[in-house]
Amino acid sequence: MTGNSFGKMFKITNFGESHGKAIGVVIDGCPPLLELSEKDIQKFLDRRAPGQSEVTTQRQEPDKVEIISGVFNGKTTGTPICMMIFNKDFKPSDYREISQAFRPSHSDFTYRKKYGIRDHSGGGRSSARMTAGNVAAGAVAFKLLNQRFKTEMTAYVKQIKDIVADINPANVSQKDAESNIVRCPNKSAAKEMIKLIESAKNSGDSVGGVIECVIKNVPTGLGDPIFDKLEADLAKAMLSINATKGFEIGSGFEGIKMFGSEHNDSFIVKNNKITTKTNNSGGIQGGISNGMPIIFRVAFKPTSTIQKEQDTVNLKGKATKLAAKGRHDPCVLPRAVPIVEAMAALVLCDHYLRQRSQCGDKFD
Amino acid sequence: MTGNSFGKMFKITNFGESHGKAIGVVIDGCPPLLELSEKDIQKFLDRRAPGQSEVTTQRQEPDKVEIISGVFNGKTTGTPICMMIFNKDFKPSDYREISQAFRPSHSDFTYRKKYGIRDHSGGGRSSARMTAGNVAAGAVAFKLLNQRFKTEMTAYVKQIKDIVADINPANVSQKDAESNIVRCPNKSAAKEMIKLIESAKNSGDSVGGVIECVIKNVPTGLGDPIFDKLEADLAKAMLSINATKGFEIGSGFEGIKMFGSEHNDSFIVKNNKITTKTNNSGGIQGGISNGMPIIFRVAFKPTSTIQKEQDTVNLKGKATKLAAKGRHDPCVLPRAVPIVEAMAALVLCDHYLRQRSQCGDKFD
Amino acid sequence: MTGNSFGKMFKITNFGESHGKAIGVVIDGCPPLLELSEKDIQKFLDRRAPGQSEVTTQRQEPDKVEIISGVFNGKTTGTPICMMIFNKDFKPSDYREISQAFRPSHSDFTYRKKYGIRDHSGGGRSSARMTAGNVAAGAVAFKLLNQRFKTEMTAYVKQIKDIVADINPANVSQKDAESNIVRCPNKSAAKEMIKLIESAKNSGDSVGGVIECVIKNVPTGLGDPIFDKLEADLAKAMLSINATKGFEIGSGFEGIKMFGSEHNDSFIVKNNKITTKTNNSGGIQGGISNGMPIIFRVAFKPTSTIQKEQDTVNLKGKATKLAAKGRHDPCVLPRAVPIVEAMAALVLCDHYLRQRSQCGDKFD
Amino acid sequence: MTGNSFGKMFKITNFGESHGKAIGVVIDGCPPLLELSEKDIQKFLDRRAPGQSEVTTQRQEPDKVEIISGVFNGKTTGTPICMMIFNKDFKPSDYREISQAFRPSHSDFTYRKKYGIRDHSGGGRSSARMTAGNVAAGAVAFKLLNQRFKTEMTAYVKQIKDIVADINPANVSQKDAESNIVRCPNKSAAKEMIKLIESAKNSGDSVGGVIECVIKNVPTGLGDPIFDKLEADLAKAMLSINATKGFEIGSGFEGIKMFGSEHNDSFIVKNNKITTKTNNSGGIQGGISNGMPIIFRVAFKPTSTIQKEQDTVNLKGKATKLAAKGRHDPCVLPRAVPIVEAMAALVLCDHYLRQRSQCGDKFD
Repeated sequence: MTGNSFGKMFKITNFGESHGKAIGVVIDGCPPLLELSEKDIQKFLDRRAPGQSEVTTQRQEPDKVEIISGVFNGKTTGTPICMMIFNKDFKPSDYREISQAFRPSHSDFTYRKKYGIRDHSGGGRSSARMTAGNVAAGAVAFKLLNQRFKTEMTAYVKQIKDIVADINPANVSQKDAESNIVRCPNKSAAKEMIKLIESAKNSGDSVGGVIECVIKNVPTGLGDPIFDKLEADLAKAMLSINATKGFEIGSGFEGIKMFGSEHNDSFIVKNNKITTKTNNSGGIQGGISNGMPIIFRVAFKPTSTIQKEQDTVNLKGKATKLAAKGRHDPCVLPRAVPIVEAMAALVLCDHYLRQRSQCGDKFD
Repeated sequence: MTGNSFGKMFKITNFGESHGKAIGVVIDGCPPLLELSEKDIQKFLDRRAPGQSEVTTQRQEPDKVEIISGVFNGKTTGTPICMMIFNKDFKPSDYREISQAFRPSHSDFTYRKKYGIRDHSGGGRSSARMTAGNVAAGAVAFKLLNQRFKTEMTAYVKQIKDIVADINPANVSQKDAESNIVRCPNKSAAKEMIKLIESAKNSGDSVGGVIECVIKNVPTGLGDPIFDKLEADLAKAMLSINATKGFEIGSGFEGIKMFGSEHNDSFIVKNNKITTKTNNSGGIQGGISNGMPIIFRVAFKPTSTIQKEQDTVNLKGKATKLAAKGRHDPCVLPRAVPIVEAMAALVLCDHYLRQRSQCGDKFD
Repeated sequence: MTGNSFGKMFKITNFGESHGKAIGVVIDGCPPLLELSEKDIQKFLDRRAPGQSEVTTQRQEPDKVEIISGVFNGKTTGTPICMMIFNKDFKPSDYREISQAFRPSHSDFTYRKKYGIRDHSGGGRSSARMTAGNVAAGAVAFKLLNQRFKTEMTAYVKQIKDIVADINPANVSQKDAESNIVRCPNKSAAKEMIKLIESAKNSGDSVGGVIECVIKNVPTGLGDPIFDKLEADLAKAMLSINATKGFEIGSGFEGIKMFGSEHNDSFIVKNNKITTKTNNSGGIQGGISNGMPIIFRVAFKPTSTIQKEQDTVNLKGKATKLAAKGRHDPCVLPRAVPIVEAMAALVLCDHYLRQRSQCGDKFD
Repeated sequence: MTGNSFGKMFKITNFGESHGKAIGVVIDGCPPLLELSEKDIQKFLDRRAPGQSEVTTQRQEPDKVEIISGVFNGKTTGTPICMMIFNKDFKPSDYREISQAFRPSHSDFTYRKKYGIRDHSGGGRSSARMTAGNVAAGAVAFKLLNQRFKTEMTAYVKQIKDIVADINPANVSQKDAESNIVRCPNKSAAKEMIKLIESAKNSGDSVGGVIECVIKNVPTGLGDPIFDKLEADLAKAMLSINATKGFEIGSGFEGIKMFGSEHNDSFIVKNNKITTKTNNSGGIQGGISNGMPIIFRVAFKPTSTIQKEQDTVNLKGKATKLAAKGRHDPCVLPRAVPIVEAMAALVLCDHYLRQRSQCGDKFD
């Protein structure tokens, strides 16, 4: 199969270009009889939308979702759910230069090499705007999981450049994460982060960081032992988000400094259920969820499109200078928080339906 | 589709259990007319085999591969290539205890929850021995890439616990990596690492670390823009290897400390080809290979099966103690080096065939 | 994967309901740089549209296609091509009865049993209107094949009820097939067929028949030996069209009356190329195209929705009578001709890209 | 994905060549805890095996199956089930001629064109022997369906050349079908058929025919509305069997001679369940099973490999004569009966698991 679909039983297909007529997504495999309205989806999309605050792009794109199919009298019918966002805010002139020269560390060059053609308007297919479809689909996946298992997910900004926030994943809440424009639940770190992003923006530069995500009330038994390990599918989902450079689960890269005897999560019995004392595994063992919270982190590079002038090469292979015009995010992380949640919801929902297929409808 | 297959056009299906009759793999989609013998595959497998040195398990399993189908008169026929390793060294008594109690941070508990049944002999399906099939398939993928593009891949141990080796990915060679039993091309670091692993082993404990992989002569244009980004599929491939906890590409988690203007890889013209001055991208931009070396790192946790006694719970839900008997790797990294290479080869080969399908047979 | 996608490398995903906001299709995997406009697609769709003549439904639905994504400056970009038809002609009142009782031999009952919910307006997802998306996608597939291989396809009505037209597949032309409203290239048979359909219509009844399809200039080597035999994928494609009950290729059900020595197609050399003297195989041997014309036939049952009163059962499980109101086709075959062509084009195009993936870009 | 796998959630991958080391199959997605032994599978295979009677090939191949993986203590574990048949009876000399000239209506020529290489021993991959793996997998699928739903399937020979047996699908039993060597439940027709096959055999010729299959106790709700209609997947499954030329369901090609008002299956209530009075639909409406028996027919051409001398072309493109040596079936139908059943079981089992995934575990 080709690369614009994701998931096996809760499968989404993403289409559109940043400045085309519309962008959208089709979900195939969603169970019938789920209550679903545009409101359910819009609230996820609004957190991803541009123009939210001074630390994101000022582009005003309302990103209003329309359900095109698959819902009848307020309920899913089991047939494909198509959701679309028709494009409004479109400034073709901003992109004239970009069509002539390759932005460093952007996809301009590789698209050209791969396809021999490239829709350069607003980045075309490579724009982070493409994630809106995935967020819409993730909202449906999340609703399903939340209804069935009371699953909760909270992603937040853990680090911006070298500012690392001290956050306890065990008791972080989405409310705290959403309480400020940088979406970092540690208020003092959040302040510093905002200052840093604004200063980068003022000098025409950009910064990156780390998003952490905590998922509670995950049913046990999700994930396939060999290739489609739950953490492997989460890793793929996260690395498929624009600008990501790394993924780690549970103890991650730091955990390798421990001995096995320190790192292992001892089993204990608690409230008559088998669980683990620690959670270095991040909720997944042998590729399969164990019922503990899933915790992972995703690294985002500093945005590649910046207003500072940079050396590059043009279409004719000649050296040139390029400084991006238009409105770009000096830091993508605040708007990426709902994208991380949405992609995680898609992975879990797909594995929930796969587990139901193979092993039936008993979960705990 | 179910979880024991990997890849779309160069697709492998893995089967078997550690102590069953045999383990194996089927490759579907391999181009015809590739010269292929068991020797091509065996040399990859020998690097993964147990019993290689004092830092790996002492289990003596020859892991001799047999080609069952898909090769005729020394050449692939385009039909499925089945390769098998029949099992020899089998000590069921070693696993009696494991069948009764859940090893901490192992898959014993989650398999039980998922399937309601578990082949416990030698870890059954969850054993790292399952990767032998993938290594065999990766050897075929690598041969194809090497023949067509002179692709070269070198993976090596970069870090064991807190010992980080200083290695320049630009000029590391597989010969250097293979020159010592820990597979670390920095000789003095290698010595320290070996000492550390032996000491862990002597105290019945285990250690983890980081493997780095450098791939040269990758054709441009591999990878799909939205979900099947090349780095996303590499991330999934790596996180599907037993005991991995993280993946990062190019500048990875460290790169987020740079400003965008520092991190961006400027385009330059060199030998009449467009390339980049730096390689923070790790050879992939916008999900598509740009012709620069692909560089990534994978974190491995300390082995969970250790001889030290640990707290756990048995099948009846009662607290108990468990100390693994038998021969286990105190550190999986030296043997995981060819697994990392094999999984990377599978991803690249699959994307090569996919690019050929969509965009034809011109590569550079 | 779920059931609303078709094809592996030229993959389409169909969405929408008959009387929803819109119906549409997404093509993933289309090669870049194919010139493509809405005109290319509209001409296929117009042949499928309702309201063409007195032997089809009188519903006036313009079925105007819009390309939403994947085309830039008149060429495909290699990214997903979404095409949509927004709905206009909508008479909800016609369907009130249908929502309360199950139409015999229609999908009303089975949708209800499967999903527990059903969008009954205009048949919802089960309407033959859903094939419009497939026809649009087939138009793109056909353009690609025609450009690359000069592939030509001609489907036509071979039989209506018991009227069988005498037609020589070797020299039938699309022009002849399109020369009358029943799309039967034998003019005298066409006249009889039209008379029969009108008489069925006048008595509130319906008739079925057989469509034959001839495809010339098919490259050799398309098809996979075991499951994805070319004729197996054609069979699936045809049986996925609404109201079909059978498929046969080459000599089909009649051919079984021959001895092997009569049925076998002897190889001969003609114009320096190896070909066959006869074509009982219908252009495919061992699942793989042999370069001869592909010839197959598809059986369509008489339309199930009729105006005559029938016995049935309502939602409450009580016996009732039902006579369809509204405008229905007394015979679906004339409008199904382009659907058969489109589905065949999708199968061939998919196998072309698959063959290119595995065996490279040489065809003859 | 490539063509040697079949099914989405109950997915099988077939490998091997007629005269290679072994042939086999891997099932991925089988539910755990199904009791399974080699005996369950062998009894299906024995009905397909060569050497059963004077109307089949005299080749003595025991086709003894070995379960290689996925079963532990007599139960499936939910991990891949690999089953293999190691090859014994191998006469390479029989095939020397076939390697030099293309058998008419066989795959020799098309394999050569597709792959540029061909394993000619015993037909290699194109041999009907390849279906043994599918029969083994079908035996597992059938056991699952039978255990859960008491599903029963009876396939039998309905027609040989122009001898059509009169059989009532409503009360045919597998016992009757198995009561004679041609597997036709109508005894007098069976006698004639046997005589005809023997006469064809004696003159070095071959005959074809039709197999009919009746499946009872199919749960309602299986099948996807648009592409993966249940009859579409059955059609593909049947056309993927060697030597098949056609498929029809329910009323099939004959049904088109009826008016809609005659053809429609009226709904009635019987034993408090909604069912249909007639079954022209063949158990499937709108692509979804309706609970009535599934009835379909498959056309098989006369075997292409015959002992009579035929005109053909050799590898160098020169005209030549060819008469097959060795032991070939004068009629494949008696041995194809269990293959038809097995492929049908695979389709139903896959759709059962898919329905369970999307709509949960309630069936009736």
